[in-house]
Amino acid sequence: MTGLRQRFGRALRIALIGGGPTSWIGRMHQTAAELDGYWRVVGGVFSSDPSRSRESGVELGFDAARCYGTVRELIDTERARSDGIEAVAIMTPNDTHYPYAAAALDAGLDVMCDKPVTHDLAQARDLAARTQKNGRLFAIAHGYSAYPMTRYARALVRNGALGTLRLVQIEYIQSGLVARLEDGPQSNRLRWVLDPKRSGLSLVMSAIGCHAQHLACFASGLDVVRVCADVGALMPRRSVVDYTSALCEFEGGVRGTFTVTQAAAGSENDIRLRVYGEKGMLDWNHRDASYLRLALQGEAVRTIGRGDPGLPSDILAAGRAPRGHPEGLREAFANLYAELAQERMAFLLGEAQPELPYPRIEDGVHTMAFIEACMASQQSRNWVSLPKA
Amino acid sequence: MTGLRQRFGRALRIALIGGGPTSWIGRMHQTAAELDGYWRVVGGVFSSDPSRSRESGVELGFDAARCYGTVRELIDTERARSDGIEAVAIMTPNDTHYPYAAAALDAGLDVMCDKPVTHDLAQARDLAARTQKNGRLFAIAHGYSAYPMTRYARALVRNGALGTLRLVQIEYIQSGLVARLEDGPQSNRLRWVLDPKRSGLSLVMSAIGCHAQHLACFASGLDVVRVCADVGALMPRRSVVDYTSALCEFEGGVRGTFTVTQAAAGSENDIRLRVYGEKGMLDWNHRDASYLRLALQGEAVRTIGRGDPGLPSDILAAGRAPRGHPEGLREAFANLYAELAQERMAFLLGEAQPELPYPRIEDGVHTMAFIEACMASQQSRNWVSLPKA
Amino acid sequence: MTGLRQRFGRALRIALIGGGPTSWIGRMHQTAAELDGYWRVVGGVFSSDPSRSRESGVELGFDAARCYGTVRELIDTERARSDGIEAVAIMTPNDTHYPYAAAALDAGLDVMCDKPVTHDLAQARDLAARTQKNGRLFAIAHGYSAYPMTRYARALVRNGALGTLRLVQIEYIQSGLVARLEDGPQSNRLRWVLDPKRSGLSLVMSAIGCHAQHLACFASGLDVVRVCADVGALMPRRSVVDYTSALCEFEGGVRGTFTVTQAAAGSENDIRLRVYGEKGMLDWNHRDASYLRLALQGEAVRTIGRGDPGLPSDILAAGRAPRGHPEGLREAFANLYAELAQERMAFLLGEAQPELPYPRIEDGVHTMAFIEACMASQQSRNWVSLPKA
Amino acid sequence: MTGLRQRFGRALRIALIGGGPTSWIGRMHQTAAELDGYWRVVGGVFSSDPSRSRESGVELGFDAARCYGTVRELIDTERARSDGIEAVAIMTPNDTHYPYAAAALDAGLDVMCDKPVTHDLAQARDLAARTQKNGRLFAIAHGYSAYPMTRYARALVRNGALGTLRLVQIEYIQSGLVARLEDGPQSNRLRWVLDPKRSGLSLVMSAIGCHAQHLACFASGLDVVRVCADVGALMPRRSVVDYTSALCEFEGGVRGTFTVTQAAAGSENDIRLRVYGEKGMLDWNHRDASYLRLALQGEAVRTIGRGDPGLPSDILAAGRAPRGHPEGLREAFANLYAELAQERMAFLLGEAQPELPYPRIEDGVHTMAFIEACMASQQSRNWVSLPKA
Repeated sequence: MTGLRQRFGRALRIALIGGGPTSWIGRMHQTAAELDGYWRVVGGVFSSDPSRSRESGVELGFDAARCYGTVRELIDTERARSDGIEAVAIMTPNDTHYPYAAAALDAGLDVMCDKPVTHDLAQARDLAARTQKNGRLFAIAHGYSAYPMTRYARALVRNGALGTLRLVQIEYIQSGLVARLEDGPQSNRLRWVLDPKRSGLSLVMSAIGCHAQHLACFASGLDVVRVCADVGALMPRRSVVDYTSALCEFEGGVRGTFTVTQAAAGSENDIRLRVYGEKGMLDWNHRDASYLRLALQGEAVRTIGRGDPGLPSDILAAGRAPRGHPEGLREAFANLYAELAQERMAFLLGEAQPELPYPRIEDGVHTMAFIEACMASQQSRNWVSLPKA
Repeated sequence: MTGLRQRFGRALRIALIGGGPTSWIGRMHQTAAELDGYWRVVGGVFSSDPSRSRESGVELGFDAARCYGTVRELIDTERARSDGIEAVAIMTPNDTHYPYAAAALDAGLDVMCDKPVTHDLAQARDLAARTQKNGRLFAIAHGYSAYPMTRYARALVRNGALGTLRLVQIEYIQSGLVARLEDGPQSNRLRWVLDPKRSGLSLVMSAIGCHAQHLACFASGLDVVRVCADVGALMPRRSVVDYTSALCEFEGGVRGTFTVTQAAAGSENDIRLRVYGEKGMLDWNHRDASYLRLALQGEAVRTIGRGDPGLPSDILAAGRAPRGHPEGLREAFANLYAELAQERMAFLLGEAQPELPYPRIEDGVHTMAFIEACMASQQSRNWVSLPKA
Repeated sequence: MTGLRQRFGRALRIALIGGGPTSWIGRMHQTAAELDGYWRVVGGVFSSDPSRSRESGVELGFDAARCYGTVRELIDTERARSDGIEAVAIMTPNDTHYPYAAAALDAGLDVMCDKPVTHDLAQARDLAARTQKNGRLFAIAHGYSAYPMTRYARALVRNGALGTLRLVQIEYIQSGLVARLEDGPQSNRLRWVLDPKRSGLSLVMSAIGCHAQHLACFASGLDVVRVCADVGALMPRRSVVDYTSALCEFEGGVRGTFTVTQAAAGSENDIRLRVYGEKGMLDWNHRDASYLRLALQGEAVRTIGRGDPGLPSDILAAGRAPRGHPEGLREAFANLYAELAQERMAFLLGEAQPELPYPRIEDGVHTMAFIEACMASQQSRNWVSLPKA
Repeated sequence: MTGLRQRFGRALRIALIGGGPTSWIGRMHQTAAELDGYWRVVGGVFSSDPSRSRESGVELGFDAARCYGTVRELIDTERARSDGIEAVAIMTPNDTHYPYAAAALDAGLDVMCDKPVTHDLAQARDLAARTQKNGRLFAIAHGYSAYPMTRYARALVRNGALGTLRLVQIEYIQSGLVARLEDGPQSNRLRWVLDPKRSGLSLVMSAIGCHAQHLACFASGLDVVRVCADVGALMPRRSVVDYTSALCEFEGGVRGTFTVTQAAAGSENDIRLRVYGEKGMLDWNHRDASYLRLALQGEAVRTIGRGDPGLPSDILAAGRAPRGHPEGLREAFANLYAELAQERMAFLLGEAQPELPYPRIEDGVHTMAFIEACMASQQSRNWVSLPKA
């Protein structure tokens, strides 16, 4: 346990919104939040059906008194408790992120929100304004950018290991929508996923494209300024978007490529990030998430592993077991939760806090601008500029 | 949460013996035990220094009343509580495993014991007898054999995918003892590690060799019957054993090779298991723990990943996140804890229970016999038979 | 030696145009041509400087009488010999491919031409017309599409292993132009490479992009119908093109991505081909050129190696050593030379010949159309259609 | 072409003994010998059946006058020619290597001999004596140690990159004898392979074990001084040896492990070499023969590729195409042929010659001593010392 956590003397209290008993991402959030002792998950809302929500919470082992039927009830009841929650973690269907997050912020709660942060850019800007107005913290659960080795990719770029950047390549190739889901029996989840009003302007961007864009921007330290996108469906007779590839221009004229699809039969969950600079390139693959390849021009390719001696202390601290002992996405999520807590605890203790790299609502605003620009580019068949931040 | 856990209605209660605030393996055990809701870690003994033990427990966030000064105190006090512990998890220096485990068994507690299970074969047999006599469960924390993909290796062998076995190769190559630790300042940990009276007959076997032997036997389903070993130190001027390589004969005349060292500069934590049969081979590497290569003669090599569709349900259940979302050693440990709980819960509910693959004290007995045989072979420079189980 | 070669009774005679003593590609062509006994390299023109050309030929061990000062002299003199050449292999600077190839075709010679086949589309069409008019064979040295495993990729697509295609991804990432070559001393080679009048409309497309485009079309069996390209230089202050990325539409509405650069510091010679269909995907990497990954939806990923039992006989025949004995680009080039000879020998023997997959002038026409479309797209910042074949 | 070859002014003349039209290794030797212009293959003996031998040579395109019926005829006739051969390359069944090599040496010819060099140690010593007495050169075709990256492994050890060596691990796992060949129709090749009188004391050692032992000694620069071996057959009901694993002691007390089998179903042609020293380790895999992993303690793992900038000039010279353009076993064989020629040419020119790393008869003597020691160890079930060189 870190010194800050020791000085703070207790875990922060958080509730889940979403994440019922059959939700793997629910357990991911819950266990990641508690992994390092920064948070205690005390209850939540676990279904859009109030009575099912309460039952589910009890089934998950929570105190029945803190298993609520609605978000409103959660917020109001917890606010009245002396030991009420200090934050919420939102992992509900996409279209509910905005209202729940807005309500939480207005109630003075910090927010850990799963992606996509909102339905559109306007909502994201609205949440950014509420976050600031209410003096809150808003984290987005981009777990892939919280692995020690994606963190180290960012660190290498920042410390100039690659020199001036020249090209950023990101791809996220998945098979999640490879079946003709539209034709089969519609599970509850499928119904909202396949309805663009609920899942977002672009299904693939809501589901995975936002992760890819964030990771590219996170590692490179650059925003996207212009895109030319090919947006559509690889699957025949599909009205939702399952594929987007874009030519990108990042800040400073750095070029980029972006390709995401959930309709790639045979793929797994394949994210690849490459950043190229004047001195060399780095290459990170999700199948090998604990390793990062650094290829400097004129030198042998280096494979750097989580926990390797010589890594910066903050990168080492983003892992928990010694090198060569595999860690995964849970620990990455735990890094996000730890940082959200650290920032809040330091604030409450009146301590200075180093800049923490977890994704914030401002990153979500950029993501929504990127998604809207891709959609506009598909309409115009031309390059589209993103609005200035 | 599984149906069994639901029917049981509560988590089992366990205490840690060892695993103070700076111990990564302590946090591994603690979080793994709680990951699936099967166990609640309620307290423990966290140092051999009683006052430090109590302070450490509080620092870790445990109820001060259940942070004990000694194992004796832990056992006696918990026994007197109506909500007392039902098991202990032991992760203290090697030489204390035996007395703590014996005391726990005799007090009617189940045991999760880190490796090496004991100092020698006689102690291991003694624990096996106590386990049986007391009607207890005894699990050994061989986490590497609890990954979904090492589990699947075993399943493939059992269901005949490889045909009759012919060869088993195991190696565990590490750099943990590559420095001249003997010459530097002796930390508390180093002092017991470098003292064979405390760390075991063979340091490398206590530290990692036991994992390697277990994994080979676990995956192949075969015991070792005879060995010819080269035992010694790769590091000059070292009196403890940091290297063992052995020619092996498994049951049924299956051949084997075994190589472990902690003195391999430049290595990471490199375990590799290969099992060969008449139809083909399987190949598993710790650096890529979520994947298993299956090469059947005359067919293309298959790379099978955790969570792949078509895997048996028990293998799928040994993972928690969808395929392509990395998991690690924590989830493997959680599998061990889950199974120990499942067996106990099923017993208490009077339910039948499928055979569970977690390592038991009988496996520890075989491990200690293997270690003693390797040491004897080094003395005799000849092949040595293991005693019959 | 194959039956056809046996029946033909002798090797065909070929001369090199280009490929002086310091040229690695010259030795590649020469040894590949002779590897299987299909061709005998009898002489050539080895420099644009006539006396240097003759000296170089002798230095390379050729009969002085057949080491010529100019291509004109080569063609005229060889035509007069009863044992004159039957083909030429052209590996001179890019801008000379067209005139040399045209002269050879008009003299009744078959041609093996290195890439880029011509400067522009008009020249390529002209060569196609001459090839047909003269009843000649015209092969292009796209060696990467002649590896057994890129051949097998094509075969898998053709036999429907992937089902209907949906996406094709090709990239070729290299560091050949990563230095500021423009600023240093200008070698003879650099002078023509950095002069777009000599190296081609797009340097990177002339150098490597044509290989990438050909490989994508070759494996997928599809032409490109429309592109939207980002064309430029990653290197600052560079007037020639060292980067092109394009969104592509292939025949039948199949989507594609295309990225090539020679300005990627730290990269090697990294070609990656992926083809996705309704049933799965295939993935080929140049660093691992003798293996092909086939991932069918719902099945374990297969890694198929050169020489694996069960491969089709024509794929097996494209390798010479047993599986597991590495082969390389030389053997791929030899495949191209063998096929060019086989087609000519079968014709001369009056035998039927199965369709051979080596790249022909018609493929070069498509390549030049692709390059021109990319350049036009960069001008218009919009999608550009390729002319119909 | 190198300066030495230029100064020498012509290729050396060599004949094949073995390597008929269906022999892949025959074509490998032939094309490798000629690849760099050091040798001209002028004829040979291509079958043990004299008339078939002559026909085969003609079929292969050789001058009928130099296609001989017997080795005796070859040697005597060529000796009488002013342009007679200067060396022979022997690739006949194992039991004929000794008499053919002895005859060639006594006739004043240099020898390139495929492995195993002889049937036993006594024959190997006899060849060594004849080589010296006749002032001849004797190369053994251990192609795996002639890859640029196995050469570089040796160079790294020699220049101290690993510090003092501590452990050497070699394995060669193959499926060449995985079928029950004994039960099927016996091809000519199988008949001699399965007859220990013809194939050697140990089939697996004759076939691949000698390569493995040589590579380990070559890279480490160390001889084996003592072994304890497990020798036998993995295949049931097999009288020939298809498996050997040995604990080894190299010079200076360096430990080693050695495992070879041709009865590993599902394997390819999997050679792995690891050398460990005080500073780190190197790791080379045949599946990835153009790359070498160097892991220095405390530093990121480096992957070094053939042709990488910064490699020593002799290692770069062992490749012919630029980095990233795959080469294979043919080029490795060509390195052996080039060096044999270089040594002979330098001698004939009276020039000094740097020490060349190709394997010589003295290496073959050590190999035969190693094989005999393994067989003796299996008999005694104990450690056996090799005779001093």
